[in-house]
Amino acid sequence: MRPTGKLHLGHLVGALENWVKLQDSYETIYGIVDWHALTTGYKDTALLQENIFDTAVDWISVGIDPERSIIMVQSHVKEHAELHLLLSMITPTPWLIRNPTVKEQARAMGLIDETTDENMMKIDFGHLGYPVLQTADILVYEADTVPVGEDQVPHIEISREIARRFNFLYGANGYQFPEPQHKLTPTPRLPGVDGNMKMSKSLNNCIYLSDDDDTIQAQVKKMVTDPQKLRKNDPGRPEICSVYTYHKVFNSTEAPAIEATCRTGELGCVACKKNLGEKIAVKLEPFRIKRRELVNDRAGVEKMIKEGSDRARAMASETMKKVRQAMRLV
Amino acid sequence: MRPTGKLHLGHLVGALENWVKLQDSYETIYGIVDWHALTTGYKDTALLQENIFDTAVDWISVGIDPERSIIMVQSHVKEHAELHLLLSMITPTPWLIRNPTVKEQARAMGLIDETTDENMMKIDFGHLGYPVLQTADILVYEADTVPVGEDQVPHIEISREIARRFNFLYGANGYQFPEPQHKLTPTPRLPGVDGNMKMSKSLNNCIYLSDDDDTIQAQVKKMVTDPQKLRKNDPGRPEICSVYTYHKVFNSTEAPAIEATCRTGELGCVACKKNLGEKIAVKLEPFRIKRRELVNDRAGVEKMIKEGSDRARAMASETMKKVRQAMRLV
Repeated sequence: MRPTGKLHLGHLVGALENWVKLQDSYETIYGIVDWHALTTGYKDTALLQENIFDTAVDWISVGIDPERSIIMVQSHVKEHAELHLLLSMITPTPWLIRNPTVKEQARAMGLIDETTDENMMKIDFGHLGYPVLQTADILVYEADTVPVGEDQVPHIEISREIARRFNFLYGANGYQFPEPQHKLTPTPRLPGVDGNMKMSKSLNNCIYLSDDDDTIQAQVKKMVTDPQKLRKNDPGRPEICSVYTYHKVFNSTEAPAIEATCRTGELGCVACKKNLGEKIAVKLEPFRIKRRELVNDRAGVEKMIKEGSDRARAMASETMKKVRQAMRLV
Repeated sequence: MRPTGKLHLGHLVGALENWVKLQDSYETIYGIVDWHALTTGYKDTALLQENIFDTAVDWISVGIDPERSIIMVQSHVKEHAELHLLLSMITPTPWLIRNPTVKEQARAMGLIDETTDENMMKIDFGHLGYPVLQTADILVYEADTVPVGEDQVPHIEISREIARRFNFLYGANGYQFPEPQHKLTPTPRLPGVDGNMKMSKSLNNCIYLSDDDDTIQAQVKKMVTDPQKLRKNDPGRPEICSVYTYHKVFNSTEAPAIEATCRTGELGCVACKKNLGEKIAVKLEPFRIKRRELVNDRAGVEKMIKEGSDRARAMASETMKKVRQAMRLV
């Protein structure tokens, strides 16, 4: 995950809750990829260290366990850069130019106006190489499985292609990368409090994991409901109501009753929102308590990050020994 | 210099003799850039280690002094990879696509058929990034001066542009790279023994620094002379004779007399070549003696390379501390 600051409910239900569960069945490595943050954010890095800290704190507070998982910061493990360089040698530029995710990201950022191959020649070289760096992030730990969202699937495909190309070129020298597989876990997509399809910091429509109860209530109050339900007792259509979408996620027990009483007009939006705000607050409270502990122990968190990165480096350095050997660099 | 195997007279008069002299007036760092060798040579790396060794041996035997100069191997100093990655973030791809040297190299290798911008999208990603890696090689030592051939001047220009861009983006954070300048030293260009403009391993027209006297004589015998001088006493035209070009370089004292007696027809080609072969043999003899010592002390050479790379790493790691600080990566 790129360190972009405090995490919100979208991160929680879209990724983190899944990551916490994966700890039970996988040897998990979670990376705060600060070098990746540079691909599009190199012009302003003033908040980078704070964002790394906030990301780590949010992860740990929701249950990513530094004992069971490796929590690492990419730039603390230089092997990622070395492997990125080596893999760049064997990666045909056309594989990168046709990558739909980078193209769409560049367009969304206004770096290019149309998602043509020609336009991809205009972006920064590191940005173009994003999928190579991501491949290095995966292969340097010989990872077999990568939990991703739908939009990241093309990246994992490139990672497999690059791994395969490495194996084709150097496999005979006694080392092969495992081909990483993506792991898609269906997760609910939370709309922003403004009704936008996605919760996103840049849209300023988030409920943050660190928000206090009043802020949560204030944010829920903004949520978009059925525009035809003007008065409390008007019948509502839960299927087009953001608040109901949230109830299904954060208040699944009561959701059927809420749906029914909304439709009949029994349940008004004010009460329904207040209820949701309380449920979210209850859900986030233990995270916030844990978060406060962590923020008050900055040195402790930094130690955890350092230790996680040290463990990661030990693994990465073993892989690199084999890679260098296979490529005859030693 | 990329490790491509044993060095020849073209390397000696085109670069190495100059490098030896530069030791008197500069703090010199000479790198065997094995990662660069991958940009175009990643498919066959079987000889890479042997080529690195041969390059080091040739350098030291002609007078690159491991006490006065730092002799390092690029892949032993991982900081080159880290800086390459960081600089890739701030380098617009168009700067690389328009690079005439990489374009011409790709065309000469048959990777592209015409030197158009579009074709540059077809080469490998690491190959496209060659000038970024070269920039990292320079800046990681805060080098102010880079001795290069004419064809490498565009690379140094890109290095300056990238340094300037870094300084523009992060200079206010307390660190700026020096802008590296190229240093062109006029050197004679030696034709190959087949009359080709350039001595080149791939053309199989070389006299190697490690060749023995008989091989040197045999190679000189192949040299192309004035095709109108058929018999010993025919008058010759030294200005179109490869042998005379060599005399000017390796036998400058006798060159005027050789020119005169060739023109009159007094001097025959057989004697003229034999004389040249002897002069080259005399020139190379001390190198060959030194070379033999070095080859017989492989462990000693490897220790020198390791020590040189350690000294390089110490410098590079100081630079990287400042770079990371400036980019807010720490």
